[in-house]
Amino acid sequence: MPGEGVGVGLVGLGTIGVGVAKVLERNAGVIRERLGFPLRLVRVADLDLERDRGIDLSGVRFDRDTEGLLDDPDVQIVVELIGGYDAARRVTLGAIERGKHVVTANKALLALHGGEIFEAAARAGVDVAFEASVGGGIPILRSLREGLSANQIETIHGIMNGTTNYVLTEMERTGEPFEVVLKRAQELGYAEADPSFDVDGIDAAHKLTLLVAMAFGAELTFKDIPTEGIRALEPLDFEAAERLGLVCKLLGIAKAHDDGRIEVRVHPTLIPATSLLAHVEGAMNAIAVHGNAVGPTLFYGAGAGELPTASAVVADLMEIARELQRGTAGPVPPLAYVPQSLRPKPLVPLGELVGRAYLRFTALDRPGVLSHIAGALGDCGVGIESVLQQGRGGAVESVPVVILTHPAPESAIRGALAEIDSLADVTAPTLFVRIEDEL
Amino acid sequence: MPGEGVGVGLVGLGTIGVGVAKVLERNAGVIRERLGFPLRLVRVADLDLERDRGIDLSGVRFDRDTEGLLDDPDVQIVVELIGGYDAARRVTLGAIERGKHVVTANKALLALHGGEIFEAAARAGVDVAFEASVGGGIPILRSLREGLSANQIETIHGIMNGTTNYVLTEMERTGEPFEVVLKRAQELGYAEADPSFDVDGIDAAHKLTLLVAMAFGAELTFKDIPTEGIRALEPLDFEAAERLGLVCKLLGIAKAHDDGRIEVRVHPTLIPATSLLAHVEGAMNAIAVHGNAVGPTLFYGAGAGELPTASAVVADLMEIARELQRGTAGPVPPLAYVPQSLRPKPLVPLGELVGRAYLRFTALDRPGVLSHIAGALGDCGVGIESVLQQGRGGAVESVPVVILTHPAPESAIRGALAEIDSLADVTAPTLFVRIEDEL
Repeated sequence: MPGEGVGVGLVGLGTIGVGVAKVLERNAGVIRERLGFPLRLVRVADLDLERDRGIDLSGVRFDRDTEGLLDDPDVQIVVELIGGYDAARRVTLGAIERGKHVVTANKALLALHGGEIFEAAARAGVDVAFEASVGGGIPILRSLREGLSANQIETIHGIMNGTTNYVLTEMERTGEPFEVVLKRAQELGYAEADPSFDVDGIDAAHKLTLLVAMAFGAELTFKDIPTEGIRALEPLDFEAAERLGLVCKLLGIAKAHDDGRIEVRVHPTLIPATSLLAHVEGAMNAIAVHGNAVGPTLFYGAGAGELPTASAVVADLMEIARELQRGTAGPVPPLAYVPQSLRPKPLVPLGELVGRAYLRFTALDRPGVLSHIAGALGDCGVGIESVLQQGRGGAVESVPVVILTHPAPESAIRGALAEIDSLADVTAPTLFVRIEDEL
Repeated sequence: MPGEGVGVGLVGLGTIGVGVAKVLERNAGVIRERLGFPLRLVRVADLDLERDRGIDLSGVRFDRDTEGLLDDPDVQIVVELIGGYDAARRVTLGAIERGKHVVTANKALLALHGGEIFEAAARAGVDVAFEASVGGGIPILRSLREGLSANQIETIHGIMNGTTNYVLTEMERTGEPFEVVLKRAQELGYAEADPSFDVDGIDAAHKLTLLVAMAFGAELTFKDIPTEGIRALEPLDFEAAERLGLVCKLLGIAKAHDDGRIEVRVHPTLIPATSLLAHVEGAMNAIAVHGNAVGPTLFYGAGAGELPTASAVVADLMEIARELQRGTAGPVPPLAYVPQSLRPKPLVPLGELVGRAYLRFTALDRPGVLSHIAGALGDCGVGIESVLQQGRGGAVESVPVVILTHPAPESAIRGALAEIDSLADVTAPTLFVRIEDEL
């Protein structure tokens, strides 16, 4: 059934796949007005043929036959939306081998197997587009690849996981503990039954891997990114942060150092309550990018969800469709740099980072404890900016003590904490949250 | 002197022109790593050959000969940065006639002569790129053209003029009157000696013209955009706004109505203090775009200045250079829609808009005045949400009275104001500021 326009084949009809079908149908008019020709969903493959997804697929061939879809001459662009690693990798490489362009939202796949996939695509002369894989509907990858292409990117600070941002916003708003808020997030569909991918920071690290490659021309470095999640935060940390004029966000952070090394990390971060990022609430995402020419920028929008993610997938389809009408692949390399410019960049070890720290100690309320803690910090050269004692316990009851440090190297802080956490009066490991003051 | 890479000719070596030369020089390394070839500034034309601009133009031909630059075979892309209308139009059309691609930051030119220029470019098969003309370094045009291309754009709310945002932020912060703050802005270089282009909203209306065309596929409509500036705002309006949980911004607003008409306007606007746009301070810009798939998005950055604007100009140069290396013009139409899709869109008259209003009356403090005002509003069907009396005067002294209305059609409010402003006890025209609650 070759027809006018460009034919799209969709592998995986889950939430985002359904969103793509909806956007292609509802916005067919405006898509055609922009392109000058239609974008046609011609074929869909999914293992589940029965479930009612509330969309009309009449005129679209829908079966389980992924190989058939890849071989179908009417399918010019393959959309991979099955998620995960193995099957997604097989579909993506299979499409590329057949000379078909690929659009994907799969950050996990690209963060781990991106090198192999982008190489295969370059050899085959096809595009692999993945705007939906970072920041959902926010056109952050295009902005790094093209809008900010004249800049040396200096820093990236991103709220890139809607689940954790929802949980953190709710913990701040309600004062409830992590488990209670997480349970509500699961009931509302903001968090998965197994939330570890989100709350342990892995999803954000996948996304940061892609941003770092595009921002700095660095080879993909997922396995090297220090990653911490949000499970250790307690209601009193939000109270203390508020008193200190700070807000807690799970940030993906990347910075270029003058010596050619890069700093990359994902962890809960305290940022000034006056910063724009601090006002990004609920399941929304935002990525702040600082370039040496443009200065500070910020890109905000829905980081997940059926239609926002589909917005990015279909934008990629439109970009490739325009190129197909000209008989070429796109001129912009998928990682923003020509492949020969991509190179491994040495990472800055966490110990070298310098910044203020939020430390929450759990100690028996005995005379001399605070002096021990302060002494250990002082011995390691860590200055104290302020001390908040959150409550009174007793000799047998532990109380939290919050200390804000002056800027110090992380290695010094870690050294002090090793000593402090071995004190008899300190009854639980100290919570250490980094503060980013430059936002 | 044909060399490797793509040759750029720059017409106009003012602030932004100098910024472009700086970015091309300082970031030559990263530009080459991204493109795979260099972008070379080969020629500059400006009337002033003497002024020391603090840049090294050795190796660049620099003279007053604009025609020679346009004819130079080494110049493949012409950057028009002279501003204004006539000379800029001549250079732009001259470059296009010679088959050269053009990059410009000139929103005034495009808002008024865009139709002619884009038509000429389409005939000649060349690109006209203008990312720098809206939002300075923010890649908002690319985001509308490509990143959000799968969406029916529903609304745009933009802070698109840094001068006015600086003045409004300072008036709010200091409580000083407009003239005092404007003078300081002029001393700091945030405002021109003749500030009317900025403070009367004309610059924002130029930019909104371009956004509206790209968002809705509408023909350019600058002369039809209702435009109000910020001169009428007084310190007490900022006090009152704060008490009401509102913040005043000069917004460019555009909305698509279901009946195919569009709503377009530039005016001071009160928005919820909790909205992200309310936190955009000083000379920064931000554009909030709502699409039917992506939902709410926001793009933030420096809206003006040497290097931020140059960031956008050089990004356009890089995009065109990539195409030149392939021997084609870019596939994306300059106004995001294929030319045959662009059509005039009827505008919604202001009278039909419905929203809450902030009304500041100036009246003699006599018994019965408030009841007259309230009566006139009531007769026109305008409900009162709250009344703030800002001070006490006397029978011979005028006092301000602030009234917040319930949502009402603007025609009803205008009708009531006509009656109220003709009352003997009302001593000055009433200030009417629209409230946007949906942000």
